[in-house]
Amino acid sequence: MPAATTMLPPADVLISEVGPRDGLQSVSATMPTAAKKRWLDALHAAGLREIEVASFVPARLLPQMADAAEVVAHALTLPGLTVMALVPNLRGAGAALQAGVHKLTIPVSASAAHSLANVRRTPEQMVEEVRAIVALRNRVAPSVGIEAGISTAFGCTLQGRVAEDDVVRLAEQVVAAGVDECGLSDTTGMANPAQVRRLFERVRAAIGARTGAAHLHNTRGLGLANCLAAWGAGVRTFDSSLGGLGGCPYAPGASGNVVTEDLVFMFEAMGVRTGVDLERLIAARAPLREGLPGEPLYGMTPEAGLPRGFVQEGSRA
Amino acid sequence: MPAATTMLPPADVLISEVGPRDGLQSVSATMPTAAKKRWLDALHAAGLREIEVASFVPARLLPQMADAAEVVAHALTLPGLTVMALVPNLRGAGAALQAGVHKLTIPVSASAAHSLANVRRTPEQMVEEVRAIVALRNRVAPSVGIEAGISTAFGCTLQGRVAEDDVVRLAEQVVAAGVDECGLSDTTGMANPAQVRRLFERVRAAIGARTGAAHLHNTRGLGLANCLAAWGAGVRTFDSSLGGLGGCPYAPGASGNVVTEDLVFMFEAMGVRTGVDLERLIAARAPLREGLPGEPLYGMTPEAGLPRGFVQEGSRA
Repeated sequence: MPAATTMLPPADVLISEVGPRDGLQSVSATMPTAAKKRWLDALHAAGLREIEVASFVPARLLPQMADAAEVVAHALTLPGLTVMALVPNLRGAGAALQAGVHKLTIPVSASAAHSLANVRRTPEQMVEEVRAIVALRNRVAPSVGIEAGISTAFGCTLQGRVAEDDVVRLAEQVVAAGVDECGLSDTTGMANPAQVRRLFERVRAAIGARTGAAHLHNTRGLGLANCLAAWGAGVRTFDSSLGGLGGCPYAPGASGNVVTEDLVFMFEAMGVRTGVDLERLIAARAPLREGLPGEPLYGMTPEAGLPRGFVQEGSRA
Repeated sequence: MPAATTMLPPADVLISEVGPRDGLQSVSATMPTAAKKRWLDALHAAGLREIEVASFVPARLLPQMADAAEVVAHALTLPGLTVMALVPNLRGAGAALQAGVHKLTIPVSASAAHSLANVRRTPEQMVEEVRAIVALRNRVAPSVGIEAGISTAFGCTLQGRVAEDDVVRLAEQVVAAGVDECGLSDTTGMANPAQVRRLFERVRAAIGARTGAAHLHNTRGLGLANCLAAWGAGVRTFDSSLGGLGGCPYAPGASGNVVTEDLVFMFEAMGVRTGVDLERLIAARAPLREGLPGEPLYGMTPEAGLPRGFVQEGSRA
């Protein structure tokens, strides 16, 4: 497997697959641990090199993630993979670091209403939590990366509009608290391309190279257009989910996360290298489907197939 | 109805609805004429001001369009509407002009293989046909506009890649033959944003202000991203289809045309005025559904609803 993937050219963008965390915790069914491992193997075989594999939260709140440590242990056997986990607080960070993850991602909401509903803390309290997590990391696992993801950065279903100044200030605060990267999340699928471009440019002006991933949703069909706008603003890391897994509770029937297959197709068709093999990526839908029978999967590229004459440069096909 | 729509601010872009032609001729069922009229009324009430209402082709080839003249007659009663029809040849143009349309659109394929399969003429022969149609228009209805739409401009399922030089040359030839506008069509859903931007820029460099509509498909999910790229290249007219009607035969289960509802939402959210009222646009799905029972409709925005706090500037709501 590693021998094959080294034949791919260096990537221009990093596709950070969040399905095993963001996707799985959004569906009511729990994927069996063995199925998660097979799915991770297939994602890795497709060339994905950063995967958010689990979140470290109490099992009574999210039974889908009760096997987080075991899933991380398996992911750590996959060569060249950055194993990432979401942690909402210091306790989760401790567990994730103990499990051996390479990178933590911490959600920090720009909307006070959403922050209280989601983690029962104000944004200011979350910045303090970030600071505590950074201190822990520095003490026990200094090589581990920490990303903050600013949720509801483009709007909130609870409070409505979110001021861009609030987002930029929060980005500065988490960077001051010691995170390595700060990304922006369209948690509620409210972003538009003009806003995505403007806000990423503002955040980059404020925190420079620490500007992290674009985590965009496809709730109203704008997922890829928003990714394109983020790319135009210099973003080079994109969160997405195989099969668009992660239905948004506010949009029944609509997919949540940007679909990895369509995102990779868009970039590769544009000549922007992702390092991901499209045929193998589409094949990775099989173990997902087997592990979550009956769950709807999204994605136009898998339905339509690759265009006639389409050759992925440097692909193994 | 006209009084209400005059309250909308002037539009920054023109959304050219193609569902009644491109959509209806792609589905096997035939919508009853009375249902077509109700649907046109609803599209007009939403603020759409250019609609491709029919194609003038032999009824034995496309029974869905056998009532073209009657549909045109009804559309002509809707105030402020540019009534457009597709004509593949001089005979169809004669019938369309006789019916009283305001604007003709002629498909001219950049792929010789597609051109022969679609209209049994080479691209060069189609340029001659365009010239004959222009001469007829000049003689009998000089105020009618003529657009050529270059099909397979971004790739062809029959011949594979289409050389950009061929597309640019064809655009120059149809302009020399007398068309008022020349647009580019992603007939087969193969376009990517980098290509869309590049090709529209090249065509604009060649034919300037005669550069017409972007007719883009959503076959692989890139429809809105491609529209965004076209907008970045200065395009201000966009073809789209309510409910994404117009399934591509090469992509079973995948929608064909860009979904009007999602396209209008994208632009309005960006602050780009379309002149279209989103609530009324979504309401126009009801007569479409009634006229084509059982036909799948696409569109993420109608499923998700408008975001909380979203106010369309100048809307009548």
